[in-house]
Amino acid sequence: MSATMGLVPIGVVRSPLNDPAEAPRQGREAGIEAEIEVFPQFAEALQGIGARERLLVVCWLHRSRRDLLQVPAKDGAGPPRGVFSTRSPNRPNPLAVYPVELLSVCGTRLRVRGIDAVDGTPVLDLKPRVPRLDD
Amino acid sequence: MSATMGLVPIGVVRSPLNDPAEAPRQGREAGIEAEIEVFPQFAEALQGIGARERLLVVCWLHRSRRDLLQVPAKDGAGPPRGVFSTRSPNRPNPLAVYPVELLSVCGTRLRVRGIDAVDGTPVLDLKPRVPRLDD
Repeated sequence: MSATMGLVPIGVVRSPLNDPAEAPRQGREAGIEAEIEVFPQFAEALQGIGARERLLVVCWLHRSRRDLLQVPAKDGAGPPRGVFSTRSPNRPNPLAVYPVELLSVCGTRLRVRGIDAVDGTPVLDLKPRVPRLDD
Repeated sequence: MSATMGLVPIGVVRSPLNDPAEAPRQGREAGIEAEIEVFPQFAEALQGIGARERLLVVCWLHRSRRDLLQVPAKDGAGPPRGVFSTRSPNRPNPLAVYPVELLSVCGTRLRVRGIDAVDGTPVLDLKPRVPRLDD
């Protein structure tokens, strides 16, 4: 029942976004559509997902910096802020949690709205979003 | 700007819960209080967190199984369900995302309500919960 802390990518984001600089601050606001390509060896784990309208998608922001503990204040004024009090992509473990709308499922490809990760971003987990737990 | 996918624990859950079997199905419903002990080398990253009332806490469920892709249906009837369509702790990357209420901060110890991870569970990330992004 023990588990090492090594991550295994279960899929990858396919998106029109290629550069973090062109990404909107948050995909949800921009309504960006993207695909999540789940790797075939995890296909079984998708059973039943089509009935879910909203998911949480956990990604590994592979282009982020992991060595920053603080970032400048948003407005450039005031003291720097600790990354744990911000949603900066730069943090010791660059994990992102996106609530997305599931638009369609075709085999192991999920079309979703609300993710601003760049093309090629590793996906680590998918969970149904449950208002009782997540709101 | 590249990053390996090795996780580094940034802290640990201190909880009265010792056994997953005694944990309620979800901590939030039970209103369980626990502490998050952030390791001293990440103290700087906490700057400003006291002003946040709600956080997302990302944990690594170290007692979970990573080799299960499906779990039995809840009621014991019906076909098994893919873990990505459930909130089972057993999944390829046993990540948990808890929305918690931040009750108090004392140095690098955060008292929170709403987490049912057992004592000793590694903590990977803390993020402010932002209704605009997370609701």
